[in-house]
Amino acid sequence: MKKGGSTKPSGIVTLITDFGHRGEYVGAMKGAILKVNPRCQIADITHAITPQNIPEASLILGNCYSYFPKGTVHVVVVDPGVGSKRRPIVLRKKDYLFVGPDNGVFSSILSGEGESAGYEITRKTFFLSPVSRTFHGRDIFAPVAGHLSRGLRPQEVGPRIRDFVRLEFPRPRQEGNRFIGQVLWADSFGNLITNFPQEEFEDKLTDHSFVIKGRKWRIDRLDPIYSQGRPRKPMALFGSSGRLEIAINQGNAQSELGLKAGDKIIIKIEDKG
Amino acid sequence: MKKGGSTKPSGIVTLITDFGHRGEYVGAMKGAILKVNPRCQIADITHAITPQNIPEASLILGNCYSYFPKGTVHVVVVDPGVGSKRRPIVLRKKDYLFVGPDNGVFSSILSGEGESAGYEITRKTFFLSPVSRTFHGRDIFAPVAGHLSRGLRPQEVGPRIRDFVRLEFPRPRQEGNRFIGQVLWADSFGNLITNFPQEEFEDKLTDHSFVIKGRKWRIDRLDPIYSQGRPRKPMALFGSSGRLEIAINQGNAQSELGLKAGDKIIIKIEDKG
Amino acid sequence: MKKGGSTKPSGIVTLITDFGHRGEYVGAMKGAILKVNPRCQIADITHAITPQNIPEASLILGNCYSYFPKGTVHVVVVDPGVGSKRRPIVLRKKDYLFVGPDNGVFSSILSGEGESAGYEITRKTFFLSPVSRTFHGRDIFAPVAGHLSRGLRPQEVGPRIRDFVRLEFPRPRQEGNRFIGQVLWADSFGNLITNFPQEEFEDKLTDHSFVIKGRKWRIDRLDPIYSQGRPRKPMALFGSSGRLEIAINQGNAQSELGLKAGDKIIIKIEDKG
Repeated sequence: MKKGGSTKPSGIVTLITDFGHRGEYVGAMKGAILKVNPRCQIADITHAITPQNIPEASLILGNCYSYFPKGTVHVVVVDPGVGSKRRPIVLRKKDYLFVGPDNGVFSSILSGEGESAGYEITRKTFFLSPVSRTFHGRDIFAPVAGHLSRGLRPQEVGPRIRDFVRLEFPRPRQEGNRFIGQVLWADSFGNLITNFPQEEFEDKLTDHSFVIKGRKWRIDRLDPIYSQGRPRKPMALFGSSGRLEIAINQGNAQSELGLKAGDKIIIKIEDKG
Repeated sequence: MKKGGSTKPSGIVTLITDFGHRGEYVGAMKGAILKVNPRCQIADITHAITPQNIPEASLILGNCYSYFPKGTVHVVVVDPGVGSKRRPIVLRKKDYLFVGPDNGVFSSILSGEGESAGYEITRKTFFLSPVSRTFHGRDIFAPVAGHLSRGLRPQEVGPRIRDFVRLEFPRPRQEGNRFIGQVLWADSFGNLITNFPQEEFEDKLTDHSFVIKGRKWRIDRLDPIYSQGRPRKPMALFGSSGRLEIAINQGNAQSELGLKAGDKIIIKIEDKG
Repeated sequence: MKKGGSTKPSGIVTLITDFGHRGEYVGAMKGAILKVNPRCQIADITHAITPQNIPEASLILGNCYSYFPKGTVHVVVVDPGVGSKRRPIVLRKKDYLFVGPDNGVFSSILSGEGESAGYEITRKTFFLSPVSRTFHGRDIFAPVAGHLSRGLRPQEVGPRIRDFVRLEFPRPRQEGNRFIGQVLWADSFGNLITNFPQEEFEDKLTDHSFVIKGRKWRIDRLDPIYSQGRPRKPMALFGSSGRLEIAINQGNAQSELGLKAGDKIIIKIEDKG
């Protein structure tokens, strides 16, 4: 990406929303994108973000945006403040473009390495008309994404901004030989993704004895893959998003352990046995 | 659109079905479309129409079809009478094409302004062979949609028809200073979409005092956007489909108020206070 | 398809997974496919395979793969043994390509008529780097599918193999005048798809009196279509996948009859009355 330059579009627009699968909301957005760029390829990432859960949307976006070709436009619509003073924005980072509300959904992108440039979407020429007060996904974000996928430069949507809303993602904290982290999210298999990053904790857990303890369970070893866990017992492994996961081989850790996003996970490092 | 003429295809086919997300039904339809037109772009609108709920499918289609580029083919398969005498049809209206069963799913399109032209699909040359008795979505509607997306003219599928099945959508009725309407549908957020149209009721509700009353709740003001509702209290606003909605800011009106499609909603207009 | 030759790609890649609709897994796979072939058209078949249910994935694939254009790449990721010694494979059959784990998901393809050729995916040049131990869908299957959709020949991914893992699908067995089969799967409408093939059983059931008996219900006739079943009563018909189905007109057979995959279904053939 050249400084102040343009990103060659891939022609791909992805969607992350909390709209669920019922009703016309997803379809109306696709229509509004395709009306601007009928050749655009739209890829659904997920529409099943927990309603209004901005941190979850940010996490999921951060986990997958970079697997797409450069020049892809990622649209995120988890927007409880739609119609209020929260700003609609376009963000450019690492040759990817991001479109959505400035409410923290892009925190995972902003917090990563590398420079980013953001713009408030103010030029109404790109909006559907009239703009509803309750569905900017359809009336602002979708048509702007359509234009970006055809080569519109982000700086053309409105003025540069630098004071983005950013959420602080909880990081594990250390108390002596204990590390206190938490569950970030549970996937469809019930695997519990925690906020212990592989790059920081893999060495600790392989070089030392440790125990991860819950109310009725304990894990004292690291497995490389799900199918090597003791059948039906809690297990720990580093998963595909680069974080420690608590899982159950042939089971569902979320329901069987009764854990959910935000619940505390404690790792106690012991002397090498 | 020229009279009796053709609509330039956008190359886009959309899908609205009640198939749910399990199994091969959606995939088989996509395959049958792509076999005819591998360059076609397929856009899922929703596959989560309540099983066999024709009015819901019609509502959702009416809410989003016009956001797509002209020349788009909208396929709707909510088809409890598949294999019976109900006719498979193609409908053309406002430069859009519609394919599905003649069972009322297109009522929202037919009832809108503008001329429409309908054709019974009888020319077997466009069908998969053999045609199953239970899955016309795959064997008739999908391949016909594929052909239409490549430029087949609707009048080529079979004879013109004019006696479509039409559902009457319930309209609010007035009794003195009360208007009696109903819930049409609840979206994934639990927002209850009613049959009070914004164009008729916005002036009434802004020019007069009013009350919308349920068993254990009352609403006496209109809010412009969800986030301005009193937190966790029922609120009323005009939503993105141009109808009055009952919602709960930071909550789920459907589950918290125990309301569902078909339930009565009464607005009482009071003297301007 | 020429022997040892190549299949002209349709440019279409389909996805069948058990990832559910939450999270980034589906999106990351789409990204990894599009990064290799941004012009590729991706068609979601289903992501709602019951977690880790290999026979179900195989059934659904077998029911729909051939409706797509020849040269389509079908990717199936139901992969409880990811990271273990189970092999990643590419399979070619009847001008279709299949990509996924060698764990039985392709049994329905392998058991059908016609020759097939399989290859173990070993050439790391097609992988994402680094390859995670827990998400080969993203890191191996998706990029390989992207390459195949651009014309990579299956034999270029690695050595030919012939000892595929195959699941035996349960076939109905005969005991005197009784045939003992089972429920294979229930669709979103609650229709119970059994393992009685139409080609074997249609004549039997039309030429003889018969009874299909459950604990609290019996069916003694065949209906041609759902809407001709006695309202709210169990009915039997041959469905769109060519198998006998137990259904309830205007109802949900799965929940109302309490039946699920694996449950026994017995047909007793009686003298022609």
